[in-house]
Amino acid sequence: MEFSEYFPVWGRLESAQQNRILASLVSRQVKKGTLLHGASPDCTGLLLVKRGQLRAYILSEEGREITIYRLFDRDLCLFSASCIMRSIQFEVTVEAEKDTDLWMIPAQVYKQIMEESAPLSNYTGEVMAERFSEVMWLVEQIMWKSFDRRLAAFLLEESALEGESALHLTHETIANHLGTAREVVTRMLKYFQSENLVRSGRGRVEIVDEAGLRRICDG
Amino acid sequence: MEFSEYFPVWGRLESAQQNRILASLVSRQVKKGTLLHGASPDCTGLLLVKRGQLRAYILSEEGREITIYRLFDRDLCLFSASCIMRSIQFEVTVEAEKDTDLWMIPAQVYKQIMEESAPLSNYTGEVMAERFSEVMWLVEQIMWKSFDRRLAAFLLEESALEGESALHLTHETIANHLGTAREVVTRMLKYFQSENLVRSGRGRVEIVDEAGLRRICDG
Repeated sequence: MEFSEYFPVWGRLESAQQNRILASLVSRQVKKGTLLHGASPDCTGLLLVKRGQLRAYILSEEGREITIYRLFDRDLCLFSASCIMRSIQFEVTVEAEKDTDLWMIPAQVYKQIMEESAPLSNYTGEVMAERFSEVMWLVEQIMWKSFDRRLAAFLLEESALEGESALHLTHETIANHLGTAREVVTRMLKYFQSENLVRSGRGRVEIVDEAGLRRICDG
Repeated sequence: MEFSEYFPVWGRLESAQQNRILASLVSRQVKKGTLLHGASPDCTGLLLVKRGQLRAYILSEEGREITIYRLFDRDLCLFSASCIMRSIQFEVTVEAEKDTDLWMIPAQVYKQIMEESAPLSNYTGEVMAERFSEVMWLVEQIMWKSFDRRLAAFLLEESALEGESALHLTHETIANHLGTAREVVTRMLKYFQSENLVRSGRGRVEIVDEAGLRRICDG
């Protein structure tokens, strides 16, 4: 059974627990653009990505979005099953950003096993802490760094100067230009890449979505 | 022993686990203004508030702060012990906002028990989910609501009109003025109150920190 290879604490569950999961598991193949979990209080279940890409975002009343994190191969989506913890008081929307193969674990089954299994509960805590860290990073960016704007502005300026969208620049060089650390540049470029704004390679940054960068620039 | 009354899942721990906690517990009384956990990678330990008030905030490189949550009587502070989970990749600063009595549980003791105890692990997850929800609320406010600005502006305007800082207004009335729901007003006033900007009572809102409200207003 393939699922066991994708689920990190599988070997630390009792066989009765494993069987309960296997018996309730639903395998799904979804097309890019499929809405997997809406901002409604229903409890879709946990989603484990086999192959593909999901995006989790929050939605304002006016319909504006902000991506809070992305999920790739082997990532587990907890917040599509917010009913597993009563203290989760927010709703995210989850959609497939690429064609995606995934498993859905019903929330009630997961919750029951989590209540009796320290390994599963600790693993769930780690997954939540990871997402929490991503959101805290976002908060910092929004609140005071504005480094996204500065980096976007810099890339557009360079591209205009060079007259092309593929820039031959290392992260180090960019960091020096902007008076920051290389790690900061690397992390933000990774974020830009996940937003399909740039493609970043060794000593090279290519602008993929100029209009998108301009929107960041203009705040 | 009083600690047991303050620690929610105490009765669900084994007595050996209880003894390990009791043997390592440190009781502290700290004055208002005491820095309990700095933005350094040291792992202070979990803080359980007996009586008082703590503030957790993040700090920019330029020294600007943003409060991410507050802890009151019986609240547990996890992020002063971020080493209990390797996925916690951010640092918060924790200070006493009032004279506070608290217990400190060493991180390593807590972590060891959490690894073997499903009740403790699940409880820890719930605490984290609560803080996560508060941070998500903050993200939404910052990103698009700007309702804090509108409410601050409204209160200042009313105060100028009435020529006094104590306003006789129900949350319902304010909601009607601002075209929103009463719950939204209540929640934001609660936030303003926790920031010591206003004092809110039945049918009454008193401005405590006019300059603070003005800062919010001006973004």
